[in-house]
Amino acid sequence: MEYPSKLLTDIVDEIAKLPGIGKRTALRLALHLLKQPVDQSENLSQAIIKFRTEVKHCEVCHNISDKPVCDICRNPSRQHNLVCVVEDVRDVMAIESTGEYRGVYHVLGGLISPIDGVGPSDLTIDKLLKRLENQLIDEVVLALSATVDGDTTNFYLYRKIAELPVSPQISTIARGIGVGEELEYADEVTLARSILNRIPFEKSIKQNS
Amino acid sequence: MEYPSKLLTDIVDEIAKLPGIGKRTALRLALHLLKQPVDQSENLSQAIIKFRTEVKHCEVCHNISDKPVCDICRNPSRQHNLVCVVEDVRDVMAIESTGEYRGVYHVLGGLISPIDGVGPSDLTIDKLLKRLENQLIDEVVLALSATVDGDTTNFYLYRKIAELPVSPQISTIARGIGVGEELEYADEVTLARSILNRIPFEKSIKQNS
Repeated sequence: MEYPSKLLTDIVDEIAKLPGIGKRTALRLALHLLKQPVDQSENLSQAIIKFRTEVKHCEVCHNISDKPVCDICRNPSRQHNLVCVVEDVRDVMAIESTGEYRGVYHVLGGLISPIDGVGPSDLTIDKLLKRLENQLIDEVVLALSATVDGDTTNFYLYRKIAELPVSPQISTIARGIGVGEELEYADEVTLARSILNRIPFEKSIKQNS
Repeated sequence: MEYPSKLLTDIVDEIAKLPGIGKRTALRLALHLLKQPVDQSENLSQAIIKFRTEVKHCEVCHNISDKPVCDICRNPSRQHNLVCVVEDVRDVMAIESTGEYRGVYHVLGGLISPIDGVGPSDLTIDKLLKRLENQLIDEVVLALSATVDGDTTNFYLYRKIAELPVSPQISTIARGIGVGEELEYADEVTLARSILNRIPFEKSIKQNS
């Protein structure tokens, strides 16, 4: 498609570089901005460039943070000997919103992905290993996606952590049938895991209440 | 959801103001930008603000244009006595890509929509009427969406154009079953229109070749 203006071509090209947004949607969004007050475009433009150039990461867990050390890592009432390893800030937010986890986090900033050219050195794995060497940590919970990249990263981390002079206990989050999900619609792998990793009934009753 | 950083809150809020983009998608897009080179965010930010503040419209047809008068309006080989009225630049691009239309356009910049608070004075209707008074125009093709707002705008324009001292012929684009579409899946209104507005078979054969 040919656009009648270079400015329009530029904005459509740039918006369409975002994942999941095609040229048609980009054009729709650009024309939408044109109907809104100039303020909205100014704020959007500012928010993008400020976020990208000024955002900071917690020195300890690498979560996005405005302070050098994030609120979770500075909180004395959290269990600092329990570290949950996640892919990115969205996972931290999701786990925090359950209100059930009292430990701290380590944000990898991605997953090892040979196809996308992401290696261990692109992530914060070295910093995690240093953290495990220098701090007293009893348990590491690997909470990564159940995908090929997630599994690759899990195995890499497991091997590296096991090689440490003093290695903590390593666990992963439970896979199984979602609460409220129907058994017959679950995939076989998930169903099999939920049977193999069954838990005492009394324990499950306690968690429901 | 609580975000761990004000910069992140700001970018998510601003992106989520765009139509069809929720907070989750906005967060995903923001985190995507973080993994890309700073250039990409700079270009996106620049393209947005430049488009919004510097974009110009053709003085004649109000299509988006880098020049005071757009390429279509300046083209001497187009039929300047045939004006197609459309909602926005996307419709111009769509009709141009068919290669079948040799007239010129008038871009309204929206549709009359009492629900969204868009009245005739928010659109370029006055300029269209002036254009029809001052230029020799034989036919106006109304090519608006077949929606409530589209119909409202069609009727408003029809009345206003008929009130002119010398009013051109007014036509609307044909509604019917799409080429390659199956009859049984078409809605009744469209199917009814396609039968009521049937055309001579010889004419349709010529258009196929």
